[in-house]
Amino acid sequence: MMNNYNLTILTDLYELTMIQGYYFYKRNLEVVFDMFFRKNPFNGGYSVFAGLEPLIKTVLNLRFTEDEINYLKKLNLFKSDFLKFIKNFKFSGDIYSVEEGEIIFPNEPIIKIKANMIEAQLIESILLNIINFQILIATKSARITESAKGKTILEFGLRRAQGIDGALSATRASFIGGADATSNVLAAKIFNIPPKGTMAHSWVMAFKNETEAFEKYTKLYPYNTILLVDTYNTLEKGIPAAIKSLKKLKRKGIKNFGIRLDSGDLEYLSKQARKMLDSAGLKEAKIVVSNELDEYIIEELINKNSPIDFFGVGTNLVTAKGEPSLTGVYKLVAMKKNNKYVPIIKVSNTIEKISNPGVKNILRLYDENYMIGDLIFLEEETNIIEKKIKNNLPLFFYHPEYEYKYLKISNYKTHKILLKNIVKNGKLNYVFPSLKEIQQKTKNNLKKLHPSYKRLLNPHIYKVSITKKLMDLKKTLIKKYM
Amino acid sequence: MMNNYNLTILTDLYELTMIQGYYFYKRNLEVVFDMFFRKNPFNGGYSVFAGLEPLIKTVLNLRFTEDEINYLKKLNLFKSDFLKFIKNFKFSGDIYSVEEGEIIFPNEPIIKIKANMIEAQLIESILLNIINFQILIATKSARITESAKGKTILEFGLRRAQGIDGALSATRASFIGGADATSNVLAAKIFNIPPKGTMAHSWVMAFKNETEAFEKYTKLYPYNTILLVDTYNTLEKGIPAAIKSLKKLKRKGIKNFGIRLDSGDLEYLSKQARKMLDSAGLKEAKIVVSNELDEYIIEELINKNSPIDFFGVGTNLVTAKGEPSLTGVYKLVAMKKNNKYVPIIKVSNTIEKISNPGVKNILRLYDENYMIGDLIFLEEETNIIEKKIKNNLPLFFYHPEYEYKYLKISNYKTHKILLKNIVKNGKLNYVFPSLKEIQQKTKNNLKKLHPSYKRLLNPHIYKVSITKKLMDLKKTLIKKYM
Repeated sequence: MMNNYNLTILTDLYELTMIQGYYFYKRNLEVVFDMFFRKNPFNGGYSVFAGLEPLIKTVLNLRFTEDEINYLKKLNLFKSDFLKFIKNFKFSGDIYSVEEGEIIFPNEPIIKIKANMIEAQLIESILLNIINFQILIATKSARITESAKGKTILEFGLRRAQGIDGALSATRASFIGGADATSNVLAAKIFNIPPKGTMAHSWVMAFKNETEAFEKYTKLYPYNTILLVDTYNTLEKGIPAAIKSLKKLKRKGIKNFGIRLDSGDLEYLSKQARKMLDSAGLKEAKIVVSNELDEYIIEELINKNSPIDFFGVGTNLVTAKGEPSLTGVYKLVAMKKNNKYVPIIKVSNTIEKISNPGVKNILRLYDENYMIGDLIFLEEETNIIEKKIKNNLPLFFYHPEYEYKYLKISNYKTHKILLKNIVKNGKLNYVFPSLKEIQQKTKNNLKKLHPSYKRLLNPHIYKVSITKKLMDLKKTLIKKYM
Repeated sequence: MMNNYNLTILTDLYELTMIQGYYFYKRNLEVVFDMFFRKNPFNGGYSVFAGLEPLIKTVLNLRFTEDEINYLKKLNLFKSDFLKFIKNFKFSGDIYSVEEGEIIFPNEPIIKIKANMIEAQLIESILLNIINFQILIATKSARITESAKGKTILEFGLRRAQGIDGALSATRASFIGGADATSNVLAAKIFNIPPKGTMAHSWVMAFKNETEAFEKYTKLYPYNTILLVDTYNTLEKGIPAAIKSLKKLKRKGIKNFGIRLDSGDLEYLSKQARKMLDSAGLKEAKIVVSNELDEYIIEELINKNSPIDFFGVGTNLVTAKGEPSLTGVYKLVAMKKNNKYVPIIKVSNTIEKISNPGVKNILRLYDENYMIGDLIFLEEETNIIEKKIKNNLPLFFYHPEYEYKYLKISNYKTHKILLKNIVKNGKLNYVFPSLKEIQQKTKNNLKKLHPSYKRLLNPHIYKVSITKKLMDLKKTLIKKYM
């Protein structure tokens, strides 16, 4: 199911019918779309941005070939003029985006597309497909990695992932979020991530007993061997047999080895296993655990001082158990008229669902140690904002819904503008960092986020505010449309 | 992220290290593996089998090329003898499977692999990846379709699916489960499923007002047009504007049209909309609803007689909200010794987790209207079972865990043997039905399942039993290993 499909028509049908409409009625309409989401997944306090490189590579390669054109022709919805036109389709607009590994929050424009309406609309579905899932898994992975307090996370999700790319792209995002290695060999090859593995119960069952199974395995793989000890009886059979084999390795001077627990009470068993290994003189033996782990179970195991060195996390990481989708949306925020972008708004009966109009960017402020808050501002305010920062003047943070709620922020030390220009006139304007570099960025960024925002239960809500000017614009437009 | 990857190494690293072990220690070991799952997803009473065609096509095409061999060489885990050997890898075993569209239950061997240990082990991860997700989504789709009581289901999930193949393969499984159409154009093309679509809020916002937006759209698409009415104010603006445009279509003799509600209280709004459309003389106008629908919401809307014709279901269908993974497993159940399969068992401290040993098949019995129960039997019992059925003799159904619990079943009228031989000695031995035929099979099969098993809340538990012989074998093996 992973053939070399042309992703140009990996889109919802209405995008194509609408762009034919724009072709006939609004061929030269220039617009701005924002991608944002309304809620951190998993009731968490933050999200991690990911997916930029696969998105950009996909968007810049979208082309209709004869094959797609013929298929569209058969649907009897498209006129030949239009089909001729899209044969030359090529994204030629501008893309602004937060960088991968950046911490992001609800209602922030994390991707901004400035393009012709036809181009901006065609890429909606694939943009949301790629970015929603990459953010979701990078965020889950960051939560799991944070809960492991520096212990190693191995991503084992292939067999329960949502399809082939559900596995491959989850491995990528897991690595960005902080997972150290993957069991998925193809993903490891594609993304240059270390592949890791232990052994399955079938290996143990294929031999007379655990002793034979372990002996044969350590003979073939003397280094970095992890023996699975729970096939029959963990404490009475599995660990004693493993100790025998590991002692032999140790006598040969080998010290990188361990055992894996895949069932039962992992706190109890890991503590018992540690005692047994230690009293056999195998203090260097590592303990790997697996079995439906998630950030909550790992946090609890760590809090109880379970002597675990590696956590193998599969299903719950790659399928984002608890919240299997990020509800990111892509909204029209401005249309060009007389060479000027005119802000527009999507109103709604639910106040929180009203989008922020206009062409925007995000300012992030930091004190000595941590992020203080984010300020969404209009592009036209860029100079004023930069000047204020240069002179270390206070900035006013308005609550996005209640205009009487605002804050004066003066205690900032450093700042960052989050949206970078990635594609300019259809040309790449950015050097993609390696995945390893992105993983390091995530780690550094997470250090700047105060622990109260990282709590699994009832995290502190990070401040995402808007400028006075954006607040006024929003009010004016709401009045106009409601 | 959907390049033409070689899926041969879409496997967990331990499968490759184990098969190198089998290559050196057990090169000619013939084995049997079962795939089964332990629990219906979504606390449901049944599951729907799917994924056979993509699985078989993938397995029969697995080949290591120079590229994969070079990558494996770099990992410093594999010896050159072994790498030479797998260059000629080709699956040459037998695959038995339930057919797509069949109703299946926990603990039934739904796929059975008879092959050399090396081949059987290499395909584990990809088999689980494909089948777990296809069953999960086909089952979710069947639940949603059943809850809609014959109304049309449109699958709209692309933008929130778990990756690209998370969307494509979910569309396939959704169609098998009963969804009528998809918004995903590429999936529609690949799987020959009708593509369907309406319009987005951005279309409405790109024009002066809804009247203009609708006029322009219906001019271009006079047939099967669905107008989105909730951009500003559904009842006061959207529907009145839609009525104007739809009346014009009607005057031209067109009768296939409707409106879409994408927010607000769908029961209330659909009833109001129906009244407004009817009193405008537009009784033929269809009402489409969308917005985070699932089987529970649809059942409630139907129970309240909401006049809805089409349900657009996205995120919750394609990501299987509520339970985003099926925990299907792949277990060694027999190994050949002296040309005979010797049954083996994976014991566990949890009784329900003990697998059924040996080479098995499934008998399903029916009365005049419905399925009565399933009986898992050993392949060696085939003749006895067939004879009993031929003579309409009673069959004994043993509870898989408690030997004192058994039933005598005599009231059966017809039967079916579920596992079919799909691949024989590495060659396809089966004609894949079309997706449309599979969808029809699902529908027919669901009709044979009594409604009490289809209840969303606390469904009746369908009987999956084992024969006396299998029960005795299980007992003997448990004693041996425990």
